[in-house]
Amino acid sequence: MASKDEFSFSYRLRVRWAEVDRQGIVFNGHYLTYFDVGMTEYLRAIGLPYPDGLLEYDGDLFLVKATVEFKSPALYDDELDCHVRIGRIGSSSMQFLFALYRGDDLLVSGENIYVNAHPVTRAPAPVHQAIRDAVSRFERA
Amino acid sequence: MASKDEFSFSYRLRVRWAEVDRQGIVFNGHYLTYFDVGMTEYLRAIGLPYPDGLLEYDGDLFLVKATVEFKSPALYDDELDCHVRIGRIGSSSMQFLFALYRGDDLLVSGENIYVNAHPVTRAPAPVHQAIRDAVSRFERA
Amino acid sequence: MASKDEFSFSYRLRVRWAEVDRQGIVFNGHYLTYFDVGMTEYLRAIGLPYPDGLLEYDGDLFLVKATVEFKSPALYDDELDCHVRIGRIGSSSMQFLFALYRGDDLLVSGENIYVNAHPVTRAPAPVHQAIRDAVSRFERA
Amino acid sequence: MASKDEFSFSYRLRVRWAEVDRQGIVFNGHYLTYFDVGMTEYLRAIGLPYPDGLLEYDGDLFLVKATVEFKSPALYDDELDCHVRIGRIGSSSMQFLFALYRGDDLLVSGENIYVNAHPVTRAPAPVHQAIRDAVSRFERA
Repeated sequence: MASKDEFSFSYRLRVRWAEVDRQGIVFNGHYLTYFDVGMTEYLRAIGLPYPDGLLEYDGDLFLVKATVEFKSPALYDDELDCHVRIGRIGSSSMQFLFALYRGDDLLVSGENIYVNAHPVTRAPAPVHQAIRDAVSRFERA
Repeated sequence: MASKDEFSFSYRLRVRWAEVDRQGIVFNGHYLTYFDVGMTEYLRAIGLPYPDGLLEYDGDLFLVKATVEFKSPALYDDELDCHVRIGRIGSSSMQFLFALYRGDDLLVSGENIYVNAHPVTRAPAPVHQAIRDAVSRFERA
Repeated sequence: MASKDEFSFSYRLRVRWAEVDRQGIVFNGHYLTYFDVGMTEYLRAIGLPYPDGLLEYDGDLFLVKATVEFKSPALYDDELDCHVRIGRIGSSSMQFLFALYRGDDLLVSGENIYVNAHPVTRAPAPVHQAIRDAVSRFERA
Repeated sequence: MASKDEFSFSYRLRVRWAEVDRQGIVFNGHYLTYFDVGMTEYLRAIGLPYPDGLLEYDGDLFLVKATVEFKSPALYDDELDCHVRIGRIGSSSMQFLFALYRGDDLLVSGENIYVNAHPVTRAPAPVHQAIRDAVSRFERA
């Protein structure tokens, strides 16, 4: 799972001192922050900068499930490539897949399921066709 | 899943301003911090304060998989009860289950799988019998 | 400076694993979070829970200057007492003083200057008399 | 104070969603993280990557005083330039100066005083001549 070849987008970030714990490794919760940064940059890349690009279609994303697998720890000052893609788009949900690499080593992989919801009422809403189009345009390119 | 009755331990914490994002809800990565605090307090309660109680048996815990389900968001200043228990203990792994409640409302549930490993070599190692005993003593009580 | 006797309020918190860095000590930025938690609890104690107690008087607090002195580091799992008081109240500003102790040892002290501003326009506004009264009632008690 | 012209080094970073609070602005403690990232990159730029470049001379840096002035808030997704320089080097201390800009707007400035100490004993130690030389070489260039 989570081979680099499955991803057409990645974002580079560097591990901060404040993110590393006493074991000398990145504290687990910060990987969700890395994935969030990766999602932000992915959405910017496909022309839908978060959150304005989605708000334009009366949508916002709320996380409903996160699954993270830790193969090998990231260390202080590591340069990491956060690979991101959208796996499935359901009627009102979007699955994001993440794979965090240091060079050729897969460190952490993840899957986030978001519900698309109205920004104010937070009631689930269909993912707008314009968003589906932007994703398939980007992933086909 | 994750009914309060399945847990004999919980730890109360209060949502900090710094943990709440622009949507007015706790940023998702912080729930892993809450679970980590809950695990720390659980281990203290069963007489194995982290990490010294485990190091005594040449063990340390490294997270290998986290699964988090978000039902409803926690808000600034909420008092939350983080319910914690150990579900399964494998030969060299431990499953922790978490359920975060605000009053009677389940907000977020989670499952963390840790591998027990030697603190220095980080090679997986059998979970010591003394740890198994401490857990079953506590959960039976 | 920052003797315990100068404070009539303190709030206890425990250092989390996620807050400790590779040097084994609390990362410096987290002390501002501890002070923020202390301020929140102080305002609750004097009957003006943040932010609603201030919003009622069309005020909100924005930090303009923070000064932190680090005498000795806090460590993982330390129980800390965050002592808090309001030093001066200017026409549209409030000075908060903080002293973080572990038992009788002063670890970190701080001074935060906040400007009181309108919550929407963020234009500085006089500190309401009701807030001045709540503070002096509490500190005199 | 803190004009851009006084700095020969800056590092660009982008505000993360997780760093922005309910007021829509970066939570104050995160600015110390930004400064820490800036210091790390400054030390890399002068050829003394933290911490190994200092450990080679039996030194490590421990923060003793931080002063932060908040002129204007950073917002979600802002691109910020963290300007960094070393102001004074005392016998066993180093003063770092920081100025965080968004374009031409100074948002936050800061001064961190570090003591140079032995990495294990943490006893203050003279700043090694090789470090002084690296700084003056870089700042003169």
